[in-house]
Amino acid sequence: MKKLYEGKAKEVFETEVENEYIIRYKDTATAGNGEKKAEIDGKGELNLKITTIIFEMLQKAGIKTHYIETLNAHDMKVKKVEILPLEVIVRNISAGSFAKRYGVEEGIVFENPTFELSYKNDELGDPLMCEDHAIALKLITKDEYDYIRKETLKINELLKEFFIKINLKLVDFKIEFGKDSNGNILLADEISPDTCRLWDKDTNAKLDKDIFRRDLGSLTEGYEEVLKRMQK
Amino acid sequence: MKKLYEGKAKEVFETEVENEYIIRYKDTATAGNGEKKAEIDGKGELNLKITTIIFEMLQKAGIKTHYIETLNAHDMKVKKVEILPLEVIVRNISAGSFAKRYGVEEGIVFENPTFELSYKNDELGDPLMCEDHAIALKLITKDEYDYIRKETLKINELLKEFFIKINLKLVDFKIEFGKDSNGNILLADEISPDTCRLWDKDTNAKLDKDIFRRDLGSLTEGYEEVLKRMQK
Repeated sequence: MKKLYEGKAKEVFETEVENEYIIRYKDTATAGNGEKKAEIDGKGELNLKITTIIFEMLQKAGIKTHYIETLNAHDMKVKKVEILPLEVIVRNISAGSFAKRYGVEEGIVFENPTFELSYKNDELGDPLMCEDHAIALKLITKDEYDYIRKETLKINELLKEFFIKINLKLVDFKIEFGKDSNGNILLADEISPDTCRLWDKDTNAKLDKDIFRRDLGSLTEGYEEVLKRMQK
Repeated sequence: MKKLYEGKAKEVFETEVENEYIIRYKDTATAGNGEKKAEIDGKGELNLKITTIIFEMLQKAGIKTHYIETLNAHDMKVKKVEILPLEVIVRNISAGSFAKRYGVEEGIVFENPTFELSYKNDELGDPLMCEDHAIALKLITKDEYDYIRKETLKINELLKEFFIKINLKLVDFKIEFGKDSNGNILLADEISPDTCRLWDKDTNAKLDKDIFRRDLGSLTEGYEEVLKRMQK
């Protein structure tokens, strides 16, 4: 297999099958745009298992994703897409960069979820990007923006419902979309405690990458707890 | 008169008349969130003259503003409003913080103007704020957002037309809105070369605060040129 791309937490390989990629989940954890970095045994495997369950759930609910199947402990087979250079972020509760950016406390429950884009560009620090800017720079069309926003808010409802059943509050999450060779926009990348903030419903204990970002304990114990609840 | 507020370029005074304020235009120029600062004789007077002409033009065209009348070389009488903590920015051509933020060159002419908000907060560096965030933090309602966006894009059309007649390209501008005691949202603050980027249509010479930000020459000469063209 030919490696096409190596990101902070995953590698993407070309396969012999046209229109299919393999995504390998790595054990690398990074935070603060790569400033903090560690190898954490088992992280890749946990994220792959969690992402698999979530993508299968979303597909059943009618969301179009790049997911085909999970092949082994590290590799997921997906449809070939070109990733849009946008991070799509939904927030239900204030936390992280939002709280810091606007000088507000964490834990404010919003009346309605917020939708935001950031420009995927490590050198520029993935800056927040408003709708008109993404369109002006021709990163997406207005129709694509509208589709992505609608689809993302639907995904938020599905995820919130999924997590609350296992006693987790979905605070916020980041997703990415890609375009297949026919121009269809598919949910891509991963959905895991690396990309979602998940707080225990009763204790508000963090069961996501903030454990690593803020040195709160064992990352894999947190992710294992999330997986255990999902498998019940 | 009792001073209510002193900003970087203006002071606001309470008067004996209820629902009226006096705004005094200062000669202070600042850039980079106050990091660069200078006293420039005549700047306040020029900005007041320019703002007066623009507010009178906009009011005639049906835009609701806080402007009542200009009293002398430094003072403008305005309706009392509570300023919304949002800077409203429109861009027709890439420049300044936009170009820096997204790593693109200056001078890209957008197909459609872009509308953006930033959170007026010097300590936080006036961060860019997307629509949903302003609403989630209850800085404005969805209806107010829609009204401000529509009104702002109307103002952009009026200003673009006004400036192109005097051979100036309106690159971008920042405005502020305030709420009067009846809850009406009025265009407030100023509209001047301190708050607009204006490029000569033929030479692209900068006739705005970038002269000061980037040490391009005499600020007042630039502003005088703008005023001269407006008075023709």
